[in-house]
Amino acid sequence: MSSRFDPPDSPRSVGLVAPRDVRLFTAEEPLTLASGGTLGPIDVRYELVGEPRPDGSNVVYVCHALTGDAHAAGWHSADDRKPGWWDDFVGPGKAVDTTKYAVLCANILGGCQGTTGPATPDESTGKPSGPAFPFVTIADIVRVHRRLCERLGFGRVRCVVGGSLGGMQALEWAAAFPETAASFVVMASGPTLQAQGIAFNAVARRAIFADPRFRDGHYYAEAEKPDFGLALARMIAHITYLSEESIEQKFGRRRQEDGPRTFDLRRETEFQIESYLHYQGRTFVDRFDANSYLLLTKAMDYFDLAEAHGPLDECLGRADARFLILSYTTDWLFPSSQGREVTTALLKAGRDVTFADFDSPFGHDAFLIEKEQISRVLTPFLARV
Amino acid sequence: MSSRFDPPDSPRSVGLVAPRDVRLFTAEEPLTLASGGTLGPIDVRYELVGEPRPDGSNVVYVCHALTGDAHAAGWHSADDRKPGWWDDFVGPGKAVDTTKYAVLCANILGGCQGTTGPATPDESTGKPSGPAFPFVTIADIVRVHRRLCERLGFGRVRCVVGGSLGGMQALEWAAAFPETAASFVVMASGPTLQAQGIAFNAVARRAIFADPRFRDGHYYAEAEKPDFGLALARMIAHITYLSEESIEQKFGRRRQEDGPRTFDLRRETEFQIESYLHYQGRTFVDRFDANSYLLLTKAMDYFDLAEAHGPLDECLGRADARFLILSYTTDWLFPSSQGREVTTALLKAGRDVTFADFDSPFGHDAFLIEKEQISRVLTPFLARV
Repeated sequence: MSSRFDPPDSPRSVGLVAPRDVRLFTAEEPLTLASGGTLGPIDVRYELVGEPRPDGSNVVYVCHALTGDAHAAGWHSADDRKPGWWDDFVGPGKAVDTTKYAVLCANILGGCQGTTGPATPDESTGKPSGPAFPFVTIADIVRVHRRLCERLGFGRVRCVVGGSLGGMQALEWAAAFPETAASFVVMASGPTLQAQGIAFNAVARRAIFADPRFRDGHYYAEAEKPDFGLALARMIAHITYLSEESIEQKFGRRRQEDGPRTFDLRRETEFQIESYLHYQGRTFVDRFDANSYLLLTKAMDYFDLAEAHGPLDECLGRADARFLILSYTTDWLFPSSQGREVTTALLKAGRDVTFADFDSPFGHDAFLIEKEQISRVLTPFLARV
Repeated sequence: MSSRFDPPDSPRSVGLVAPRDVRLFTAEEPLTLASGGTLGPIDVRYELVGEPRPDGSNVVYVCHALTGDAHAAGWHSADDRKPGWWDDFVGPGKAVDTTKYAVLCANILGGCQGTTGPATPDESTGKPSGPAFPFVTIADIVRVHRRLCERLGFGRVRCVVGGSLGGMQALEWAAAFPETAASFVVMASGPTLQAQGIAFNAVARRAIFADPRFRDGHYYAEAEKPDFGLALARMIAHITYLSEESIEQKFGRRRQEDGPRTFDLRRETEFQIESYLHYQGRTFVDRFDANSYLLLTKAMDYFDLAEAHGPLDECLGRADARFLILSYTTDWLFPSSQGREVTTALLKAGRDVTFADFDSPFGHDAFLIEKEQISRVLTPFLARV
């Protein structure tokens, strides 16, 4: 366990956390999807830390990004290699202070970390539905989040927060369920994905389609899964999460080994940046499902808040809530101009909005990394009544 | 034929051009490669337009980029769909005015457009050497260029000009053969490829390796070539040639067809940007060879002028020549900082250098597009004695 984490017995850690599963929709009472058709049953895996008030008024709902999961904070076991993905921000005395707030995070619909998705065995066949899994949108994902809150009795939560695809969920939530949160925090995100982001998602999906082991999505019973394609998709995407500045500082042109060049085309990890990307791809396939990746990236491409709900100032202005919009100067997946666009719309609507365009070197990933920077604005934002 | 081109009978066109082939190295007198070993025979395809003086003193040597060829200007036949790749800049009255200068351009070593490369049949076996083709570097490529000039009697040319990988060749030329050109023009390039560029090349190569039809490079005799992987590599690379600004303006989030979303994951060309990238990939495989692509991108990764020749001010300062360095504010493959770095080194060495950092929206591709902008500086630069 790296010392950069707060271990489970640290006073700054929420400690051990157990995931919970709940059935929110059934075959008889399914979710009606934005793409048409219905989906049920839907089981959701979530984690809840801190002490929620029965009405949810101290609950911070965390929406995870594309490849995240319900495990936002704490540890599943003392033997874990690392804690939840946003543990730097969630815990006693942290930006989302669990002595004051409870934190709820659920794996998203269509994902592969416990909530119903393409890899989930269908109850009638016992086999994953794979490519037959219906198309789900960000709106569908958020409707499941909202149903989870209702099930837990949380009528109006204190805050809905998310970065990247999680930020899209927060924006969708504000437009679709404007009464159900007192505040929204949107990090490194926007009301749409721009052309360059669509382009990268398109080539990433094509990398999966290109893998003969993908078999049109029917790979679950096979010995070999489309790991090569999924890893390549992740490698492509991962470049977009870094900034030119951070990648140059961290790796530059350094090679893995000193000495002469190998002049070997098949030596795919000669440069450190190559080795790093290969590692990212290799470890990703152990925790992610290719069909989920296809589905969720396309849901991201499709997301267009204004197209679905009307002009931003109108659809976001309906939310009786405060907003905190964070962007990063080096984020080229969701450039600062998108955070500014949301902020301008909220100001036009007369909403209470704080916008910070952080000068971080870490690009899109800054919302997972910049602990002090985010905490400085998030802590007082959450504290305000 | 699109009206945006100068047709072959236009007074602004160099008209019809015939490629020529020449054997520059033989099995008995091969080229000694930077990677060790030798290569011969080496046949080179080149095109020469305008009227060269016998000593080459009015010759402009154009170095093409990664996927270019010897066909810089004019038309191979009146039926061609389009002229050479830099025809906007080369012709009577154009930036490189062929009433004054002759223009020489050769397909690069290791390429696949007429000069010896992996797809060239080996004389002993009659079959392409494919993955057995030796590793070639930018230094090797430039040594072949230089040998071509010698063969044609051009002791010292007026200018060596290139963009991107062509700019690397121009820089290498200045360091390796400092007496052999009176000026150098480097566009959208640098003395190295930075980490982000290496990263994109790495994932592009992996897309080729991933294609089962690649067969470790032995695909020439097969009915199916690794077109899927090569197209995907091109799609990835093509994103890096555009700027966020240009891609957003040109395509944005527009879909190919009005109406509702398809909710079909396999509809790979729903957005216009997807359709555009697919088109780029599809047409690329008709004119390029996967083994060449692997080789030349790796040669690009390896290029490090200072590592090979010593500090930039020393190695470039040896050239008794004027320099014109052009960069583009929206080029993220070779950012302006690299043009500035080369310029600073040349100033330190007391060389005559002009640096222009153009504010173009077209990203890396600007050197192929920005006719007026480039002509405004290139025309007077070439005219100076």
